Amino acid sequence: MLAVSFGRGSNLPAIGSYNQAVVLDAIRRARGGLSRVEIAQRTGLTAQTVGNVSRKLLQEGLIRESGRVINGPGKPRQMLQLRPAGRFAVGVHVDPAVITLVLANLEGSVVAHSRYRTPSSSRPNEVVDLIARRTRELVRGADVVPERLLGLGVAVPGPIDVEAGVVLDPPLLPLWRDVPLRQVLTEATGLPVLVDKDAIAAVVGELWLGAGADDRRKERTGVAFVYYGAGLAAGLVVNGETVRGKGSVAGNIGHITVDDRGPTCSCGRVGCLGMLVTPQGLVLEAIARGVLPSPAAPVDEKADMKSVERPFMRLARLAERGDVAAREVLRQAGVRLARAVVVLANLLDMDDFVFGGPFWRPISAQLLDSVREAVLTSTALVPKQAMHLVDTRIGEDVAAVGGACLVLDAAVTPRPAAMLISAKGSSGALAL
Amino acid sequence: MLAVSFGRGSNLPAIGSYNQAVVLDAIRRARGGLSRVEIAQRTGLTAQTVGNVSRKLLQEGLIRESGRVINGPGKPRQMLQLRPAGRFAVGVHVDPAVITLVLANLEGSVVAHSRYRTPSSSRPNEVVDLIARRTRELVRGADVVPERLLGLGVAVPGPIDVEAGVVLDPPLLPLWRDVPLRQVLTEATGLPVLVDKDAIAAVVGELWLGAGADDRRKERTGVAFVYYGAGLAAGLVVNGETVRGKGSVAGNIGHITVDDRGPTCSCGRVGCLGMLVTPQGLVLEAIARGVLPSPAAPVDEKADMKSVERPFMRLARLAERGDVAAREVLRQAGVRLARAVVVLANLLDMDDFVFGGPFWRPISAQLLDSVREAVLTSTALVPKQAMHLVDTRIGEDVAAVGGACLVLDAAVTPRPAAMLISAKGSSGALAL
Repeated sequence: MLAVSFGRGSNLPAIGSYNQAVVLDAIRRARGGLSRVEIAQRTGLTAQTVGNVSRKLLQEGLIRESGRVINGPGKPRQMLQLRPAGRFAVGVHVDPAVITLVLANLEGSVVAHSRYRTPSSSRPNEVVDLIARRTRELVRGADVVPERLLGLGVAVPGPIDVEAGVVLDPPLLPLWRDVPLRQVLTEATGLPVLVDKDAIAAVVGELWLGAGADDRRKERTGVAFVYYGAGLAAGLVVNGETVRGKGSVAGNIGHITVDDRGPTCSCGRVGCLGMLVTPQGLVLEAIARGVLPSPAAPVDEKADMKSVERPFMRLARLAERGDVAAREVLRQAGVRLARAVVVLANLLDMDDFVFGGPFWRPISAQLLDSVREAVLTSTALVPKQAMHLVDTRIGEDVAAVGGACLVLDAAVTPRPAAMLISAKGSSGALAL
Repeated sequence: MLAVSFGRGSNLPAIGSYNQAVVLDAIRRARGGLSRVEIAQRTGLTAQTVGNVSRKLLQEGLIRESGRVINGPGKPRQMLQLRPAGRFAVGVHVDPAVITLVLANLEGSVVAHSRYRTPSSSRPNEVVDLIARRTRELVRGADVVPERLLGLGVAVPGPIDVEAGVVLDPPLLPLWRDVPLRQVLTEATGLPVLVDKDAIAAVVGELWLGAGADDRRKERTGVAFVYYGAGLAAGLVVNGETVRGKGSVAGNIGHITVDDRGPTCSCGRVGCLGMLVTPQGLVLEAIARGVLPSPAAPVDEKADMKSVERPFMRLARLAERGDVAAREVLRQAGVRLARAVVVLANLLDMDDFVFGGPFWRPISAQLLDSVREAVLTSTALVPKQAMHLVDTRIGEDVAAVGGACLVLDAAVTPRPAAMLISAKGSSGALAL
């Protein structure tokens, strides 16, 4: 947090660990590995510093020597590569319907995975017990020694207090009120724990691993992850940093007006994105158009996701099979979602939109085409550069994988602000 | 730019100048001055480093010793204060109607000021000549020696290429197409020149000098300056950094839908903020309601600002005098503007909105009350913290003052990224 570290000076120990992160990051990005000479060229550090830092990284098991390469005259150069099994992180996604756990290595690759129905009561203590137990099983099953485990990153529905790691009052987890998730999970697992919003975890995962991460990552300083779950939210990266906002509730796009009709929203207006394009909104639209049968009980705004999932999946299947009216529901939803994309693109001059989340995949083929066409032909779009509107390549586990990447990112990514002398004597970063 | 410096290491000379900026910044923020002991406490630097750095700052004339203060036991402490006359910057605002120049000292206080009608042809070379000539007069008139002049910061209407300092094609300056303003002004003045969008300059000025700058500046990591000129734009600060976006066109809020009626926008839809709440939009609304007489020639979208200014000022005066129908036009505009404020607040979890710009002051009293009431009672607003919606305290010169602050900010504000070893051998920052 800039606000915390602002105004602090720097000193030698602080740059030492910063430079270590810089070298590790350079090696990590170059999938084929780098020689010490190449590292010095890329980072601007002296050969001596690179030599010292890489010796330390080898000792700590974070990198490995991967053979010699002949490259022009002179003696062959020893290449340094990331050691994927050098460290691991556990990522957890707490969704109102499903709990997903992944174990990721230092590259961010998933080496083990498990999924469970969220306990029907959804009581916080049951969920915490489940996560703690399944984390132990996952780590033990993959033969990972405890010293190599960096920590646990948990993606949860907002709103949360990200600094304190507290889940405040997510609409679809009615028993979760002010749950100090970081604290109780730290106690239950003995691991460092980070808690963040699902959409934020998704965009961090996407930056680490997603579409074009290798080539374009350096330039991906503005990215929006459109997270399609029970509700719609955006996970934003601006100037290369995630946007959490003052009360860590950033990313709310549900009240952007995207039409001049539709059901009346809780805000009193019509045409809100969050009423029209959510799974709930699509099901209501499909019923209104006769694409889906009217339910025995009226489907209202407060219907839980389990009662929406079945008709939503049915709508998706109809569209996939070519049902014209079902496709029209999704086409119209795409046009509406495109209007919100244009608002974001115009405000933040952002061209990189990634779509995913628990309910995204069943409708992605139909919806994304419609969003793309409407954005690219919009006369309201101000930025002139090419727009990239893509499916997440990480798939349905994106928030869990993102949880693990939050931990990797905190431990590995060099941040100039980390060079500042901490006011509290500790940077709060996870130690490698 | 993070994207440029990403992946670079750090070394001692780089932190040396960073620490100098940190000390200067600490002294600048404490208006009453600081002792060396207090500086060490606030920055985390050692007494020895603070001693060395402050000696250098004294030699360079950036700070001064301002007398001894007795503070508890021990010998009285020598206080260090910013030396306002130690350096200066010129700020220029190129508006389609008016060119404003200010000379600001190291505190950002305006010590000299001048305004000119934009030459009626608005040819770029005439404007450049005018700026160069008036800058010389301003600097000479204030008896500022050239060595103390840091540079020239120019605020212009977008779109621009901020890296190259090129003005692309501002809608209301039809003869300005791809004007390399930074280059020609550097040649014409011999000074380092920065060029930025008017709304961005305004938010930088506001952060330096504006409402609550002393107390709240550290926490002002998210701010939106709603810039009310011929069009409406937002100057955004997110995570403590200005948001320019990939093509430096960020801040476009004109196509946010804020009503379900109104004239059809260039984008084909109705209810766009940029059609309804601009000076042009208010005049059209006032004519439609019979508040202003129908003009002899129809006022259309492309009317230049000079033809709009007169009826706009008349509407503002009517409202000020209590004309009920004129007030209703502004009240309704406030409700509409509030909807865009809520979209920004929800997306970025931002509570700090400052309003200003060339056309703001005549209507601010009426409009701001209406915006405030509508935002504070909005059931669509997600952030729970108190919202701050305030007039700029800098007044009509905010973009010109902001231009000067761009230069001061580049020269003075410590940025951790400045510690990185530059790939090009130079950081691109303005030297003190």
